[in-house]
Amino acid sequence: GLKAMASSMSSGETLSIVVVGASGDLARKKIFPALYSLYYDGWLPEHFTVCGYARSDMTQEEFHERIAGNLTCRVDHDANPEACEGKVTDFLERCVYFSGGYGDAEAMGRLHDGLSEEENNYKVANRVFFLSVPPTVFVDAAVSASRAASSQRGWTRVIVEKPFGRDSESFGELDAQLGRVLTEEQIYRIDHYLGKELIENLMVLRFSNLIFEPLWNRDHIRNVQITFSEDFGTDGRGGYFDHYGIIRDIMQNHLLQIMALFAMEQPTSLAADDVRDEKVKLLRSMKPIDVNDVVVGQYIGREVKSGYQPGYLEDPTVPDNSNTPTFAAAAFFIDNPRWDGVPFLMKAGKALHERKAEIRIQFRHVPGSLYSSVYGGNLDLSTNELVIRVQPDEAIYLKINNKVPGLRLQLDTTKLDLSYKDQYSNRDIPDAYERLLLDAFNGDKSLFIRNDELKVAWALFTPMLKSLEERKISPELYHYGSTGPVGAHYLASKYNVRWSDGRD
Amino acid sequence: GLKAMASSMSSGETLSIVVVGASGDLARKKIFPALYSLYYDGWLPEHFTVCGYARSDMTQEEFHERIAGNLTCRVDHDANPEACEGKVTDFLERCVYFSGGYGDAEAMGRLHDGLSEEENNYKVANRVFFLSVPPTVFVDAAVSASRAASSQRGWTRVIVEKPFGRDSESFGELDAQLGRVLTEEQIYRIDHYLGKELIENLMVLRFSNLIFEPLWNRDHIRNVQITFSEDFGTDGRGGYFDHYGIIRDIMQNHLLQIMALFAMEQPTSLAADDVRDEKVKLLRSMKPIDVNDVVVGQYIGREVKSGYQPGYLEDPTVPDNSNTPTFAAAAFFIDNPRWDGVPFLMKAGKALHERKAEIRIQFRHVPGSLYSSVYGGNLDLSTNELVIRVQPDEAIYLKINNKVPGLRLQLDTTKLDLSYKDQYSNRDIPDAYERLLLDAFNGDKSLFIRNDELKVAWALFTPMLKSLEERKISPELYHYGSTGPVGAHYLASKYNVRWSDGRD
Amino acid sequence: GLKAMASSMSSGETLSIVVVGASGDLARKKIFPALYSLYYDGWLPEHFTVCGYARSDMTQEEFHERIAGNLTCRVDHDANPEACEGKVTDFLERCVYFSGGYGDAEAMGRLHDGLSEEENNYKVANRVFFLSVPPTVFVDAAVSASRAASSQRGWTRVIVEKPFGRDSESFGELDAQLGRVLTEEQIYRIDHYLGKELIENLMVLRFSNLIFEPLWNRDHIRNVQITFSEDFGTDGRGGYFDHYGIIRDIMQNHLLQIMALFAMEQPTSLAADDVRDEKVKLLRSMKPIDVNDVVVGQYIGREVKSGYQPGYLEDPTVPDNSNTPTFAAAAFFIDNPRWDGVPFLMKAGKALHERKAEIRIQFRHVPGSLYSSVYGGNLDLSTNELVIRVQPDEAIYLKINNKVPGLRLQLDTTKLDLSYKDQYSNRDIPDAYERLLLDAFNGDKSLFIRNDELKVAWALFTPMLKSLEERKISPELYHYGSTGPVGAHYLASKYNVRWSDGRD
Amino acid sequence: GLKAMASSMSSGETLSIVVVGASGDLARKKIFPALYSLYYDGWLPEHFTVCGYARSDMTQEEFHERIAGNLTCRVDHDANPEACEGKVTDFLERCVYFSGGYGDAEAMGRLHDGLSEEENNYKVANRVFFLSVPPTVFVDAAVSASRAASSQRGWTRVIVEKPFGRDSESFGELDAQLGRVLTEEQIYRIDHYLGKELIENLMVLRFSNLIFEPLWNRDHIRNVQITFSEDFGTDGRGGYFDHYGIIRDIMQNHLLQIMALFAMEQPTSLAADDVRDEKVKLLRSMKPIDVNDVVVGQYIGREVKSGYQPGYLEDPTVPDNSNTPTFAAAAFFIDNPRWDGVPFLMKAGKALHERKAEIRIQFRHVPGSLYSSVYGGNLDLSTNELVIRVQPDEAIYLKINNKVPGLRLQLDTTKLDLSYKDQYSNRDIPDAYERLLLDAFNGDKSLFIRNDELKVAWALFTPMLKSLEERKISPELYHYGSTGPVGAHYLASKYNVRWSDGRD
Repeated sequence: GLKAMASSMSSGETLSIVVVGASGDLARKKIFPALYSLYYDGWLPEHFTVCGYARSDMTQEEFHERIAGNLTCRVDHDANPEACEGKVTDFLERCVYFSGGYGDAEAMGRLHDGLSEEENNYKVANRVFFLSVPPTVFVDAAVSASRAASSQRGWTRVIVEKPFGRDSESFGELDAQLGRVLTEEQIYRIDHYLGKELIENLMVLRFSNLIFEPLWNRDHIRNVQITFSEDFGTDGRGGYFDHYGIIRDIMQNHLLQIMALFAMEQPTSLAADDVRDEKVKLLRSMKPIDVNDVVVGQYIGREVKSGYQPGYLEDPTVPDNSNTPTFAAAAFFIDNPRWDGVPFLMKAGKALHERKAEIRIQFRHVPGSLYSSVYGGNLDLSTNELVIRVQPDEAIYLKINNKVPGLRLQLDTTKLDLSYKDQYSNRDIPDAYERLLLDAFNGDKSLFIRNDELKVAWALFTPMLKSLEERKISPELYHYGSTGPVGAHYLASKYNVRWSDGRD
Repeated sequence: GLKAMASSMSSGETLSIVVVGASGDLARKKIFPALYSLYYDGWLPEHFTVCGYARSDMTQEEFHERIAGNLTCRVDHDANPEACEGKVTDFLERCVYFSGGYGDAEAMGRLHDGLSEEENNYKVANRVFFLSVPPTVFVDAAVSASRAASSQRGWTRVIVEKPFGRDSESFGELDAQLGRVLTEEQIYRIDHYLGKELIENLMVLRFSNLIFEPLWNRDHIRNVQITFSEDFGTDGRGGYFDHYGIIRDIMQNHLLQIMALFAMEQPTSLAADDVRDEKVKLLRSMKPIDVNDVVVGQYIGREVKSGYQPGYLEDPTVPDNSNTPTFAAAAFFIDNPRWDGVPFLMKAGKALHERKAEIRIQFRHVPGSLYSSVYGGNLDLSTNELVIRVQPDEAIYLKINNKVPGLRLQLDTTKLDLSYKDQYSNRDIPDAYERLLLDAFNGDKSLFIRNDELKVAWALFTPMLKSLEERKISPELYHYGSTGPVGAHYLASKYNVRWSDGRD
Repeated sequence: GLKAMASSMSSGETLSIVVVGASGDLARKKIFPALYSLYYDGWLPEHFTVCGYARSDMTQEEFHERIAGNLTCRVDHDANPEACEGKVTDFLERCVYFSGGYGDAEAMGRLHDGLSEEENNYKVANRVFFLSVPPTVFVDAAVSASRAASSQRGWTRVIVEKPFGRDSESFGELDAQLGRVLTEEQIYRIDHYLGKELIENLMVLRFSNLIFEPLWNRDHIRNVQITFSEDFGTDGRGGYFDHYGIIRDIMQNHLLQIMALFAMEQPTSLAADDVRDEKVKLLRSMKPIDVNDVVVGQYIGREVKSGYQPGYLEDPTVPDNSNTPTFAAAAFFIDNPRWDGVPFLMKAGKALHERKAEIRIQFRHVPGSLYSSVYGGNLDLSTNELVIRVQPDEAIYLKINNKVPGLRLQLDTTKLDLSYKDQYSNRDIPDAYERLLLDAFNGDKSLFIRNDELKVAWALFTPMLKSLEERKISPELYHYGSTGPVGAHYLASKYNVRWSDGRD
Repeated sequence: GLKAMASSMSSGETLSIVVVGASGDLARKKIFPALYSLYYDGWLPEHFTVCGYARSDMTQEEFHERIAGNLTCRVDHDANPEACEGKVTDFLERCVYFSGGYGDAEAMGRLHDGLSEEENNYKVANRVFFLSVPPTVFVDAAVSASRAASSQRGWTRVIVEKPFGRDSESFGELDAQLGRVLTEEQIYRIDHYLGKELIENLMVLRFSNLIFEPLWNRDHIRNVQITFSEDFGTDGRGGYFDHYGIIRDIMQNHLLQIMALFAMEQPTSLAADDVRDEKVKLLRSMKPIDVNDVVVGQYIGREVKSGYQPGYLEDPTVPDNSNTPTFAAAAFFIDNPRWDGVPFLMKAGKALHERKAEIRIQFRHVPGSLYSSVYGGNLDLSTNELVIRVQPDEAIYLKINNKVPGLRLQLDTTKLDLSYKDQYSNRDIPDAYERLLLDAFNGDKSLFIRNDELKVAWALFTPMLKSLEERKISPELYHYGSTGPVGAHYLASKYNVRWSDGRD
């Protein structure tokens, strides 16, 4: 297992973890805490160095101070606060800071020298670069890091995060540029949704239980809804977002990845490439997206008791008259034997009525049901559902009908519930970044995205995005805190689906 | 619904409920309390009389006193003790007692006259006789009641309880004798297991949920275990039991009925005869029981901390050297397209280690599983199970595999749980007798057993019972409080099954 | 087997076969030849008498002459004409004629005496009455035969043919009248379609082959077409027909029986009552017929090269302005788990373009098909079909797609063909009446119709027939020799079906 | 389509087809006739040259003479012998001969010059090399051809035939050597079995018909038998064979390819790489071959009426005491959800009792069958089978049970038959080489084998072959003309299979 591997690294090996963009929010809030958690739990190799790299001038102390605030001892902090504090100090001792421009080869050279000094004590020295930088400097950072700071005595890996381009063309360019300095083997593309426990559990659920597979197809599933909804807007930080919009920001990557994992065939093995082969196969089986099956929206402000919730265009960082969608709903179809004809409905939006991310499988009606009269007109409410809720409160539940105890024949819908929170309350559910960083250190690419996946994903979305933009389709307006534009309901209705807004 | 029906009876109709054997335990502990509960909850018609009939001489007051002790106001007693008490008084006012021999036509004639007096105020007068009498006087009671005390201005129904004979021959005789004085229409044969909520729920579960039906067959189910186990012995009351033995007492009726409901095809409707047609069809598809697939046992005493637990033969009411089995296990097979080759294992016993009644469905192993290495050698533990627990604590749960949160790939078995107790804690789960009495009053025969069902059931069991008896097969001995004789494990093993003793 | 049974009858047993209505067409063309064939082939018991009974005065010689013309030695006539002729003589020696009115108890008494004389030589004497008489005298004949001519020393059976009433009410009356003189056990109701080899084969096909059952359901079958079409009109014999119309004459019995056999669940055994239980269960699951799903038509004359083909109303035996349909098409639905939503389309008509009776199962389209582009727009033509053709030329074939040999990828539809004619060319396919008569002699009721079947069938059709008649719906006119009224196409189209007129 | 493509090649393009090893048997009997057939049928581009290359000295005339004998006008030869003859002459005019050693770069350079002369008239000049040479010179020929004779103004493709190594190691080496001079894109590896019409039809059958897919799995298929049997021995040409043996010669390639095509999942499209991805996936899911599941045999001579049929070791070209198997049978298992537990039995042998190559799918027994009593003990004979016969006489048939016409219930097995010979008798079934050559010219690689397929195939077979050889397992002896060694029956029996030797 992993711990064994970790221990094998201890003899004469060291690992340098370079966080490029160390002064940013993500680094502070997610990356360093995740590294610390892994350290605290014993997952990191014996010898390692964490290295922050950014443009700002900072002393080592300022750097340590900056990151220390977010390092917490998740599990037994309360039990043993002193041990925790001691661990933090140990960890910070291994953290060093370098300053330099992202495309500055010379500064990267200095970083290389600095790392080498420490690494010289070991026979093998591996390096991981986490590129936590804006898309504009992304390629520069990758090029200068790999050219000037690749390990000479071990592997070098580069972790990158979206955006991976804005369309097929820009992704192709980006990929080509990276390809000149890095092999596909070296690149670890993060979709942090794939690090979520429940998404991982999805495969376990489908493939280690006999009872789901016979149901996982068009004969039994009526529709699948994949929902991502946030209950807040851009809040003064819409600049980056406006360049991408909700479709590129959420749908084309996170939701599409989830859908692929949900719908793919069983892979030959759990090996990373086998899983990704199946995801690619699934994506390639998808029908082109019909632009008439897409609804886009943009939220406007509203007055509530607690004050005014500003609309998207009222965000000062958003350009005037921006057409960028903050909401999108779309219907997808998969043209293979398992899913032919089953609508997959996706919905993603900001400033909606609830915070929720889930996959909801609605099963078909019972054919020739004995109980149809018992349900009255509301047959839809009585169909079985399987819900995989990613947030808030990870949970899996299966909605079934049962008889209400008593002398009448009265049916009721019950949840056969597997709540992570209750079930594993004393367990520590790791953050997505912990899982992903550890996998990158160990070379396990299952949860990272391969370039051919992105190629197919962009091939699917680009024509639709182009069409929306060329036709200058204005987003439907919806109020902050609402369930989104009504167009989404008409879209669902077109395929005999009813969104589960607000339902359990 | 039922209440509507109840109200329609109010105009000019009355109902006389005659409990024959009113001085017995069952009457006192179950029948009168059930009648009172129905009354308290408003399920009885406006006009009704409850009439106790037994051999003992008793005044009305003695009778009232005898039954009053067990009348409780299940639900809101605490909330409103006075209302409850008032209701008890009202109820007792409607209860009258007659004494007479069970086969005494003259006494029954007096009963008839007594009832008629009250009934004369109504246009329609229906009568229900509940024959709570020993099997030896059973036919006499039925004959004299129906001959001398049938209603002249309404229907007459007779509720009877097992035993319904000891084998095909004696059942045939019994049935013929009843048939001379009553139509099949008039006879309500109780199997009080069929009045259990969960058994009723079994049909709802199977036929109102899409997700179970595709799994309900030989392709997905590895075996089915139907277990009835008591943690106490005959306790000085083995006389009646010894005449029948565990196979006739539990297996041939309760467990076989449960199995039929579990395994039958979907009926055309929920109507009583449609359901019973399917049960008969199922029973007729069963293969003859191979006597080599039957294990019988008898418990012997043991010393425990709290004292000595006496063996079956140490019960003074049991004949010396009795061969009567107090434990039996058997394998059944159904020769139809749905179940061909699936072993149905039944086990019933007294003085075992636990009190439990359940149906446990073990699903097959996942074919071509990705996770077989994760489970090690213990593949059997990872197969999905559906458990329908009848007692103690009615519950339904589905055992599935999921990933334990954390950075390792570790699988765990979780219960998707529908616990009646938690789910419906503030609900009042009615006693089986309430349900059955109410159904008899309303003429709903779904939960009663038709004579052709019994005929087929006896045809199935009689050759096996004969064979056991002719060959004088001695039961394997097992200790009071154990899991039963080891032979049961060898039987299970023969069909690749492992009993779930003590497992959840 | 049957021959064994036949031989067991020889010792001290005789059988009298009375054909009531012996002077009619059916008797001459079908019944006597069938009896002769059975005799010729050794299926009749050693001792038997065939007795013609009718109103006409005839000598024995005239009677023999009348029937002799249609007695043929099917199989080896050519091989051995003399043997055949000898057999005919032997057979006629056993044929006697009685004359008398159908309701004339006295004449029946004479028949009884006549039969008894011959029967007195045997210990056991069984009698079969075949009532081949008009519906108007049907009950009279049954009553007088059973009252005055029942066997005293063996069983008496009565074979009857449709019509069994015109609706629920008249059937109920008829059934009650027969019930007064005969038990259900004694009555053999013929639907001669059920004696067709292929209809019998339907059960063998479904239940003895593994490959059909998984396909026999709503997930795989798109629709089922049951067609009966004649290429001639009433031809001057429309009097009887006009009283019933095509729906009662063909659909409510023949086609409905075929549909029930096709669609029923697997019976518990091949025993007659098990099969008929399943047919009744199926019929009870059918949805009420929507009168909007029924199209009726009536043919009109047309001039063709060979002369004028007269319309229905031009038949002199048909009342002026008759509204009686000579064509009907209807859509049926079965509300059970297997068939929910699958349209069963029936069509029956006279004076159409072809003579054909068949069941055609159209399978669904291949989901996620790789070959959709290969078929162009004509996807429907490429779906698999199973055709069970009853006439002309009994055949079963399965239409599948295969690649045309050659260097292109070109698909073709091929028939996997089981042609009775070719396959069993040197075999002798028995006439339906032979099979049915033999079954009646042997007491095998599988192919006869039970009264509860008819009750359900009439319950299904009566409201629709009433509605058509009350609303005085005029039939759509269609030309003699056409494919019927266009309304039938609109009906099919409503359920996405295309009639297979003229297709193989 | 292809013809369109052909025509597009005509403008300014030419194709040179070089047959290296032109003096060999394969070239004469198969390759040149196939090229001529393509030419005759209009499949070759307008401008092309066929070029023979071999070590022998030959004049152009001698070359033409050598090949002319086998050029036939398949289809309309009889109809139009003169046209045919004219075509032959035209074709030969385009055929030129070069002599040179296979690894002789200089000679290849001369060939290049010769080709270039002709090609200079065209803008685009493509070249195909068909390497029909012994394995020993195979790499040399490939290297010298690609180095010295690659096209400068178009693509160059190389067609190669097995053997592709003897095990993982030698294949790896071979692949590496080719890889140095050719891209995978350029290499066309032939398995001429894949060019057989019926093998191609296998995909059409499975994926364009709805009725097969639901049956194509472990729930319905009991076992699959893939048989290759020849009724003659090595006949004095055992030298080459002895180096490989039957497992490498037939099983590891032809039969394994057929099995992969049969058992793979539906590919995303019909594109070559999609199909081959699925084949690789299938091969990777196969369980390691257990050497105890392999039986090897070697034939010995026998005296028959027509003379003596010599044993393998009596072939003078075979080394004394050779252990090389001329017969092998093996059981394979696929560890995926579709096939888990289904035995795939392969058998290949020389000098057996019949000439046959087929895939035979035996379906499971009907569960809960009504007809089991009708079949007596011979249940196995009544299970459905699907047979895809490759030779002799290509055919597909489905064996089903039906009722024999007549008054008894007697079942019979019938073939629903799609005989290519009858069905397409006036059609011209192209030879495998025609199909494969044409595909190579058109760049369609569906029927060619990719290097990763071979890698997996060798990974599967190498350990078993090594084990057989290391343990020096002696083949079981069997007589020329027999059904092979008895060990094969014990192997089959181990998995409850019965070989279909000699059955239809």
